[in-house]
Amino acid sequence: MLDDITRSAERDIGIKAYPRSISRIIGAIKSSDDFWEIVDISDEPLPLVAYVIERLVDKGFIELKNGKIVLREDLEGEVSQWHKCFECDGRGVIIDDFKKEFETFMEIQRERPSAKKEFDQGYVTPLTTFSRIAYADQKGDIRGKEVIILGDDDLVSLALALTHLASRVVLLDIDKRIVDFVSKSARSHGVDVEAHVFDLRNPLDERFLHQFDTFFTDPPETVTAFKAFIGRGLATLKGARNAGYFGITRRESSLNKWRELEKVLISDFGVVITDILHNFNVYVNWEYWDTTRAYDLSPSKTHPKTNWYKSALFRIETLEDFRIFNDPIEGDIYNDVESSTT
Amino acid sequence: MLDDITRSAERDIGIKAYPRSISRIIGAIKSSDDFWEIVDISDEPLPLVAYVIERLVDKGFIELKNGKIVLREDLEGEVSQWHKCFECDGRGVIIDDFKKEFETFMEIQRERPSAKKEFDQGYVTPLTTFSRIAYADQKGDIRGKEVIILGDDDLVSLALALTHLASRVVLLDIDKRIVDFVSKSARSHGVDVEAHVFDLRNPLDERFLHQFDTFFTDPPETVTAFKAFIGRGLATLKGARNAGYFGITRRESSLNKWRELEKVLISDFGVVITDILHNFNVYVNWEYWDTTRAYDLSPSKTHPKTNWYKSALFRIETLEDFRIFNDPIEGDIYNDVESSTT
Repeated sequence: MLDDITRSAERDIGIKAYPRSISRIIGAIKSSDDFWEIVDISDEPLPLVAYVIERLVDKGFIELKNGKIVLREDLEGEVSQWHKCFECDGRGVIIDDFKKEFETFMEIQRERPSAKKEFDQGYVTPLTTFSRIAYADQKGDIRGKEVIILGDDDLVSLALALTHLASRVVLLDIDKRIVDFVSKSARSHGVDVEAHVFDLRNPLDERFLHQFDTFFTDPPETVTAFKAFIGRGLATLKGARNAGYFGITRRESSLNKWRELEKVLISDFGVVITDILHNFNVYVNWEYWDTTRAYDLSPSKTHPKTNWYKSALFRIETLEDFRIFNDPIEGDIYNDVESSTT
Repeated sequence: MLDDITRSAERDIGIKAYPRSISRIIGAIKSSDDFWEIVDISDEPLPLVAYVIERLVDKGFIELKNGKIVLREDLEGEVSQWHKCFECDGRGVIIDDFKKEFETFMEIQRERPSAKKEFDQGYVTPLTTFSRIAYADQKGDIRGKEVIILGDDDLVSLALALTHLASRVVLLDIDKRIVDFVSKSARSHGVDVEAHVFDLRNPLDERFLHQFDTFFTDPPETVTAFKAFIGRGLATLKGARNAGYFGITRRESSLNKWRELEKVLISDFGVVITDILHNFNVYVNWEYWDTTRAYDLSPSKTHPKTNWYKSALFRIETLEDFRIFNDPIEGDIYNDVESSTT
């Protein structure tokens, strides 16, 4: 039965599926009856989860009851057991040293611009933003360093400026609302962020090339977009042994795609991956959710009740022979068969 | 000055060094006067740290006082700031669900065989052993699964058997003392471990090929040994979407070597790296430390006072087209210019 669905998935929706994919989805259904949580727990691409649930409904193994996904037979599945640290929510870092800055940030961010689908936005929890800074600081990538953020609806630039740790904070974003919000908030709190409206589909100009020690970005996860965003991040760096941070999710990228992205990092760009932290980035449910492909695909058409969209935090470091990518890109770089929220 | 040492390091000891390497070592000296802690904090290969300290002594920037390493001038260096979670020691997982098993293990392991240099041994703390199991369980790689451990002075096999989670636990080790200790301890606690004496330089035979869902190993970090150990681990697996766990350290591997090892994983073996957890594995100081090259190289000739040897936990997952390596290997596979404890 599993083999059957595994094979048809690839044919019908173009996503490579494995018996373990199906087993993880069934296991997730044993832990939750909520579609979004099932996607979260299973760690399989959302379109695949939706497809598998529909096939299992067809076959009579599960049923949809008032938007709930319920097993009708006791199928075998891989049930995850949590041992996540309650103190740091599994991230391994705490933000105690930034208590005051975090409070200020919480206050400011209440007025933040809402997430816009047009720009593939969707921001992380404030705790994620600060944990990211704590992690990067622990790695030596923040203190006294020049830092650039390429696309910043997470407001990392603002949080970073509030800590006064970096020697320079620069932000590029396509969205004037973000640029204005960060500039205004920074100014009113007496901290510095150089914020520029910039469309990353264009090549970076020399104002931003080879100037920074550390970059943060959150690339769309098609191979083309990934290459463009990370390649530009690398182009901002001064040289060897500088660092880059970004997220890759399981929600929109199968492990086959993960491997492709890792190959881009190691073989195309010649960088080394130093850290991969599962589910480090936790996203707040965005307001445009019911206009996404994810909603279209969801068998239940329910509201997400918990923060189900997460991504792994990647850290890379450049070596002496790293390469960059700064060519112009065109067309729809945001969508492939595995994406569903862009 | 930094550039000068950077260049001579490569010429004199054959390890690729960067200005940031030197800066991290100087920063570490600002945090500690103990050689072993400086290696730990700097995250640079031990032979390079020793070399840089000697050059800085030559130039009069630091001095050795009663085995302490002390800066004589206020050099600029990258000082790390810790934000590590105190509850899980930065690992992100806790072992509360295994309290009883952990206590039993603590009792048993008091009689464990001491680490032998001949076999490149050196074991992790019991907390590391159990955290590794907790992490793998969270990933769905343990419960009801068939698990093999290739080389096990960390006693993962025994800990795992005590938890009763896996459906099968198999252990291969070159050291009869480990095999006997685990067999005897397992038997006396009424749990099952199939333990075999096996030299991993030989190809695995069909008793162990394509039988398992998950493997654990701890490869020596020359590229040849790494390829052999991971290749054999992969050869034990049933097929796609199975998992492997192992450590890679910064103490004996530069980031240039890390990139080579990652290329082996992604390009040679065709697997995907899903997790890299910095400093997850913490080693107990081994008894033969003063016969190692690390001791020879250490400018201070002091005893390590803290657990300074750590490694990152890697998790990989197989995809449909992964490859294995099961050829015989010969000669000294344990040493290269960056190694110092084998």
